[in-house]
Amino acid sequence: MGLRRLILHGGLQVHSKDKLLVMAFQRRMHALPFSDIQVTDTFWSNWQNKLIEVTLPAQYDQLIGTGRLENFIRTAKGGGEFQGLWFNDSDVYKFLEACAYALTIRKDQKLLGYIDEITELVSAAQADDGYINTYIQLKFPNLRFRNLHMMHEMYCGGHLIEAGVAVQQCLGDERLLNVGIRFADHLSTVFGPEKRQGYCGHEEIELALIRLSEATENSKYRELARWMVESRGQGNSPFVAELADQEATAMWPHGSPFEVNGKYVPEYSQDHAPIREHTKVVGHAVRAMYLYIAAAELASGENDSALEEALERAWNNLVHRRMYVTGGIGPSASNEGFTTDFDLPNLSAYAETCASCGLVFWGQKMLELTGNSDYAEVTERALFNGVLSGISISGDQYFYANPLESRGTHKRTPWFTCACCPPNIARLIGSISQYVASIDEEGLYLHIPVGIQAKFTVSGEPVTIEVESDYPWSGKFKVNFKASKSLKFKLRIRIPEWSEEMETELPGAEEPADYDSGYAVFDRVWKDGDSLTVDLGMEPKWIEADPRVRDNLGRIALLNGPLVYALEEHDLGVAPQLFSPNLDALPEVTKSKVLGGINVISIDGQCDTEFESDDLYLPEGSTPSETRKAKFIPYFAWNNRGPNNMVVWVRRG
Amino acid sequence: MGLRRLILHGGLQVHSKDKLLVMAFQRRMHALPFSDIQVTDTFWSNWQNKLIEVTLPAQYDQLIGTGRLENFIRTAKGGGEFQGLWFNDSDVYKFLEACAYALTIRKDQKLLGYIDEITELVSAAQADDGYINTYIQLKFPNLRFRNLHMMHEMYCGGHLIEAGVAVQQCLGDERLLNVGIRFADHLSTVFGPEKRQGYCGHEEIELALIRLSEATENSKYRELARWMVESRGQGNSPFVAELADQEATAMWPHGSPFEVNGKYVPEYSQDHAPIREHTKVVGHAVRAMYLYIAAAELASGENDSALEEALERAWNNLVHRRMYVTGGIGPSASNEGFTTDFDLPNLSAYAETCASCGLVFWGQKMLELTGNSDYAEVTERALFNGVLSGISISGDQYFYANPLESRGTHKRTPWFTCACCPPNIARLIGSISQYVASIDEEGLYLHIPVGIQAKFTVSGEPVTIEVESDYPWSGKFKVNFKASKSLKFKLRIRIPEWSEEMETELPGAEEPADYDSGYAVFDRVWKDGDSLTVDLGMEPKWIEADPRVRDNLGRIALLNGPLVYALEEHDLGVAPQLFSPNLDALPEVTKSKVLGGINVISIDGQCDTEFESDDLYLPEGSTPSETRKAKFIPYFAWNNRGPNNMVVWVRRG
Repeated sequence: MGLRRLILHGGLQVHSKDKLLVMAFQRRMHALPFSDIQVTDTFWSNWQNKLIEVTLPAQYDQLIGTGRLENFIRTAKGGGEFQGLWFNDSDVYKFLEACAYALTIRKDQKLLGYIDEITELVSAAQADDGYINTYIQLKFPNLRFRNLHMMHEMYCGGHLIEAGVAVQQCLGDERLLNVGIRFADHLSTVFGPEKRQGYCGHEEIELALIRLSEATENSKYRELARWMVESRGQGNSPFVAELADQEATAMWPHGSPFEVNGKYVPEYSQDHAPIREHTKVVGHAVRAMYLYIAAAELASGENDSALEEALERAWNNLVHRRMYVTGGIGPSASNEGFTTDFDLPNLSAYAETCASCGLVFWGQKMLELTGNSDYAEVTERALFNGVLSGISISGDQYFYANPLESRGTHKRTPWFTCACCPPNIARLIGSISQYVASIDEEGLYLHIPVGIQAKFTVSGEPVTIEVESDYPWSGKFKVNFKASKSLKFKLRIRIPEWSEEMETELPGAEEPADYDSGYAVFDRVWKDGDSLTVDLGMEPKWIEADPRVRDNLGRIALLNGPLVYALEEHDLGVAPQLFSPNLDALPEVTKSKVLGGINVISIDGQCDTEFESDDLYLPEGSTPSETRKAKFIPYFAWNNRGPNNMVVWVRRG
Repeated sequence: MGLRRLILHGGLQVHSKDKLLVMAFQRRMHALPFSDIQVTDTFWSNWQNKLIEVTLPAQYDQLIGTGRLENFIRTAKGGGEFQGLWFNDSDVYKFLEACAYALTIRKDQKLLGYIDEITELVSAAQADDGYINTYIQLKFPNLRFRNLHMMHEMYCGGHLIEAGVAVQQCLGDERLLNVGIRFADHLSTVFGPEKRQGYCGHEEIELALIRLSEATENSKYRELARWMVESRGQGNSPFVAELADQEATAMWPHGSPFEVNGKYVPEYSQDHAPIREHTKVVGHAVRAMYLYIAAAELASGENDSALEEALERAWNNLVHRRMYVTGGIGPSASNEGFTTDFDLPNLSAYAETCASCGLVFWGQKMLELTGNSDYAEVTERALFNGVLSGISISGDQYFYANPLESRGTHKRTPWFTCACCPPNIARLIGSISQYVASIDEEGLYLHIPVGIQAKFTVSGEPVTIEVESDYPWSGKFKVNFKASKSLKFKLRIRIPEWSEEMETELPGAEEPADYDSGYAVFDRVWKDGDSLTVDLGMEPKWIEADPRVRDNLGRIALLNGPLVYALEEHDLGVAPQLFSPNLDALPEVTKSKVLGGINVISIDGQCDTEFESDDLYLPEGSTPSETRKAKFIPYFAWNNRGPNNMVVWVRRG
């Protein structure tokens, strides 16, 4: 398992018999291994502490209480009723993955106990031939892989593999990985170029097989993933035959977005076109993200410009036409996904928490593929807004959908019948260190100025970089260099799009920074004790949307650094839909202890005043108005004081 | 059948053995019989001519082409497959009702032929015991009245009865009425106080039975209707048992709004509370309207203040909290009905054409019950906007939903699988004379200044009133009195709410008008040749909505007289969502020949300008604007030049 580590630390001077695999790992940059990077700032440390102390224990209780673990026990026993939804195994696996990451933050016996207990249950439930899916094993043991479009067997298996890789990499425990390997090996006996044609209705297995290739240094899993990604959308979908197979559809007879008026809808699962011909993001948002993560990995190091260009087209369509300002994606509930360009309704926004997690995962892969900081810009936007809004400040209540307006009917809950989001956000919070910095053979990238302590080597010499930061509450941070020797390498700091005047100070520096691909590059010999001070010039900004976004015409939103702000009725006293800010006044930023400690932004404005009237329609000019001070809070912190009216896009007065 | 006519003409000096029935007919005012009132103005004559020449022949073709008539033929033959939806019989009956009304406008052999042919088919399909419903007869002959909540058997029977009454009253042909009577008699052998408890999931039979009582001078039908109206919502709903009856639910196994998460939803069919306890309009909008029509009739002449007050509460909730400015009602597609107060989204507005028809029907009954012109105000608003938008200017394309904004995806079609709306709007256009004027023992009411020629008697002397009008294009009209003698009676002219300065001129009049219940009352001795000139002072007005209608905050709409105006992309050149009018300028009204001849209203304003940008989100103030002249058209005329962007509520600049 040394290959990944070698590459991460030492660039590409790697020897291996598996040339294909080496090429595949030729990303432009890499995250540091969990053991070598720790988050140190208040903001993310708080989230990570809550993850260990609140989030994961509460999720474990839900896994027990909803019968998710019992399903494995019954499967191991050889029979019994299945409880819950057919893809519930995946929540268990994602929970394990999150526990593994959390244990790199600090040791915790409870979490270790969860992993130990559940690993045993999962191992026991696996069939002798490596197959594992408790729903199918308990309910349809003779219908394995019979309904690929709905049954999520490979999807669940993919999450098993991801969990196995995570537990092995973070804790050195190979038991769960071996379950995953056995499933993957079983899969490769059933599906493949010379075997059965097929892929999963919900992508995930592809990216998992690639992770497995990397973890096991065995290219066969990657090649199976490539075959699945490339087979998809070729016009001979296995799903068409399945939809005509009455025994298959009887496994889920209640209809699905795979079919409308008796006609197969290939877009829903990105089965509409070969991957290299994709031009727009379509269908189910999470599925699209997971497909593109795998495709971005497949493009890495391959000089596969056709694939890379297709991914860039899809990305640009997503980011420039179909993404909420919060990094929420997939506006529509009916397909949990995409609709048309510029269709971004606020009140009915679906913007599933998992989809924003998926956007972060994909964005990071695109960044590693291309080295272009634009991807980090979006990753950061999604992370601090559309992802974090999915979990309560208390760490144990969730949103599945993340609307940009509420009329008081949205409410966080501790769990969902379809509970994909809670463990997804948990694994992302646990692995936040993987998204803030990268290394390549030339040095270190800081994509997001989160406070970290990072260790790596330069020419074999150990280096420690400390970032002292109060991000996202301040745009000022320091980067301290510690090493026993002076060493030459490049330190790249991403310049966010919102930063209009970035100032840096590096005592004794002769050269100013260079600029490359959205990064300020400090290429020099670093001495122990060197300290770079950066001020990104963070201040509140009003933005507007492209006028083709009809729902935002006449509306503006307030941003501060990476954070999108929102206005709640709690803080205005009346429904914020009534409010228009006074744009002549400067928004005032103040630190507040509410909501776990946030920056509040205050601004005066005019409010339409509600009054008792029997007339629903009145002469223009009838509604009185009043001046009110609005206190905006970060969007991620909304709905933590109970349901109420909320807007992100306020009316321009 | 003379009673109705006697009452209509002579007030209440009626002798009958059926005292209950006489009381029941003691409405405060009555429409004139079809034979005594003709529409003469251009606007409605055009619609009525199209009705005869285009609409009804095209609908007949649809009845044939979709198997709706064939279902009757197969039922008469005793077997065969049923085609279409289970309540399709009702479309046939409503079509017949519309044909009957249309034949009072002018004789037409084709329409007479339709009635003749279909009456034979319907008669032949009726079972020996009077039962008739081709769906049940063909598909579930042993499950009559087994699933009252879904199967619409009484609903279809109600439309049969309405059609029978209409054909008899308009043409003197009693054949269809007799089919209806036999169905009603059959129904009264099955259901009733001492018999089986039950009522229909879709109200309609109640109002039909009341019409039947009036047409047959037999109170038993009215009493059955009363029992059904009063039984509803008493907490022991027959639908609860049906939902647990697997044989019943298997008749429609695909779920329905009657049940959510396995729990009965009584609101959907107004089964939530006894009628006298209703405070808000709930559930399916058309069902609610039809229930309230029956209830208003039951309250007439009964001094039933508890019922009357309940109806007024429901009405006020509807009109002051839940009605679109177009008279569209029922914002939600999922239940085809009501949601919460002030929830009136524009883009997703359902506002079913049938629901607005129902609002006109109910409003007229409330007007007849109370004599209060407020009801006519709403009836007029719905008629000229939310109803007429449901049919194309060409007379053969329809909208089922009538949104107040479009982003180009709405499209008229010649028919629907569920085709309730086309024949509903047809029967309303055919019977428009019943909604514009009424008589009582004191004289004539003009509720809507449509051009008419109306005949009635005063103290036994024949009188003709002619209204010369170009309504809704002008607020000026003349009322001419013609009679061989001078006669004293009251002429009441409704003063619309939008009329700020009504001017009247009556040469030789010594007394000015009195004002009563929203009418200007001219109480005098009228001489042959007297001519009253009225100018309602119609001019364009901007209105706004109660600020609790969140979707209309910062928005205004343009009205002119009874017409709501809309702005289409066709007339602005760009999407009208981009437009804000210049409120300092006066809107300019000009006659136009487009769209069948309308008044166009022009006004300058500012448009946000679309520009090619890769950035979906931009600094505030980035979007350039330009001046454009907007040409608003009446809402009812929208989407007659193909799908395009449309708004009713434009942004206040």
